[in-house]
Amino acid sequence: MRSLEFDQFALTAKNLLETELTTMVEELDGPPILKEAMEYSLQAGGKRIRPLLLFATMDTLGADWKLGVKVAAAIEMIHTYSLIHDDLPSMDDDDLRRGKPTNHKVFGEAIAILAGDALLTQSFRVLSTLDSAIFTDRQKLDIISCLSQSAGAEGMVGGQVADLLGEDKQVSLEELEYIHTHKTGKLLAVCAEAGCILADAKKEIRDLFRSFSHHLGLAFQIRDDILDQIGDEKMIGKPVGSDVSNKKSTYPALLTLTGAEEKLSYHIHAAKATLQKIGGKSLYLDTITELIATRNY
Amino acid sequence: MRSLEFDQFALTAKNLLETELTTMVEELDGPPILKEAMEYSLQAGGKRIRPLLLFATMDTLGADWKLGVKVAAAIEMIHTYSLIHDDLPSMDDDDLRRGKPTNHKVFGEAIAILAGDALLTQSFRVLSTLDSAIFTDRQKLDIISCLSQSAGAEGMVGGQVADLLGEDKQVSLEELEYIHTHKTGKLLAVCAEAGCILADAKKEIRDLFRSFSHHLGLAFQIRDDILDQIGDEKMIGKPVGSDVSNKKSTYPALLTLTGAEEKLSYHIHAAKATLQKIGGKSLYLDTITELIATRNY
Repeated sequence: MRSLEFDQFALTAKNLLETELTTMVEELDGPPILKEAMEYSLQAGGKRIRPLLLFATMDTLGADWKLGVKVAAAIEMIHTYSLIHDDLPSMDDDDLRRGKPTNHKVFGEAIAILAGDALLTQSFRVLSTLDSAIFTDRQKLDIISCLSQSAGAEGMVGGQVADLLGEDKQVSLEELEYIHTHKTGKLLAVCAEAGCILADAKKEIRDLFRSFSHHLGLAFQIRDDILDQIGDEKMIGKPVGSDVSNKKSTYPALLTLTGAEEKLSYHIHAAKATLQKIGGKSLYLDTITELIATRNY
Repeated sequence: MRSLEFDQFALTAKNLLETELTTMVEELDGPPILKEAMEYSLQAGGKRIRPLLLFATMDTLGADWKLGVKVAAAIEMIHTYSLIHDDLPSMDDDDLRRGKPTNHKVFGEAIAILAGDALLTQSFRVLSTLDSAIFTDRQKLDIISCLSQSAGAEGMVGGQVADLLGEDKQVSLEELEYIHTHKTGKLLAVCAEAGCILADAKKEIRDLFRSFSHHLGLAFQIRDDILDQIGDEKMIGKPVGSDVSNKKSTYPALLTLTGAEEKLSYHIHAAKATLQKIGGKSLYLDTITELIATRNY
């Protein structure tokens, strides 16, 4: 499934993105320790699944995906801030993230909170100052509007609150899906949505992408839960079973491991079926979907 | 100095703003406890100096200030998030704010952090979805760009980091001014800047307003430091001398009380002189400047 062409795309994309992120932080006129803390978590070696999803969406729609690099960087800043804040002692209290000490372990709690705040704020600075020779003001505003809704109280932050409230108690499957569609799903969906906006896609196409990313987001999270139970500690970069010790509800806990795997398979099939409807040259999106279904970290 | 006309304006503005803030939070489709925490701090009874400054700027420039209410609410959301995060145990560790328990004392640290994150994010949602029948896309983007720069690593967050780094040591007057122009000044300046953008002011006028709000911001902070030393605990809503016990550098500590008062007077005069150059009907701005110089809370 994974082709040389995809690997080349993913590598180029990752390099472009990481260079962009470094430049963006370097250019900031702010306290060095703050910039160091921002950079530390931005470069902590994530899978960059969100940027890849945005680029692949643009590519499928016939747009030059490299033009999306600043938008992808802005979304990655929001994803990174959310990880920094989620890891804090008063939240999940995690010491490790992707095998490295979490931000507050290195820089202290105060700087970690502020690095998160600065990343979140900078994301909107980046989007509001995108090159006007390439994008219209309307495109910029549509992305800001979409991202701020998906990342805030109605999206990611709301999902994190629901996740905290669900600790130490049995949540229903419905509650678990609320948590995941909000905490993880909405920000993944923004990537496809932003790709559509940048590629000037029609409403029907955007609706299909919304459906695609809904299934992709749930698949992503179910695989995450499965990995927490059966994964390789070295690969996932944190202790196996940490969801259980953090008293998090998970799909395997609610549905058994087999049930969770069936649900994963259902969402992967639904995502692929939607891709077929979208048509176009969707090699990259097919591969991303496949990778999410089978990833080991 | 304080006229019936100004009092009427301030009261109308405060009511309009607070109704808008309540509606904005009520309309959010998010977890009730999160919305409650957001609303708690938004309605904690601040002076609303930032919204008043924005409205008064628009009024001076001949624009209908009531059209600025959503923009003022967006800025007030950012101001409020910064107070919630500043009060956290890992930052200033304050139990009281304006005489009421701080957000984390009521809702716990995790929800307080998330309420701050949600307010910051929502601010950009509000700005990106302003009524297109009233404002152009360019106006919206200019405000988002200006606000995100002033509130982030290059502005308010950067100032808060510098403030934290300055604890427990003697800072120079230059460092103290850096802290305050960034931590407080930049967000005050955005209010005047946003007012100029909404009123379609020319570049020369915007430059004058920038100078005006620079002096106003420093005056505001110097008065704050003076009040912390000689203020009435009941009026200021927190213990007198808390800066000293928090080991914060202040203007009186650096310049003596008389020296700080002289510096306050200098900035107030400079602000007023700039207002004269701006011309127009600046009654409200005159009064706001005066109030900042003499306020007791």
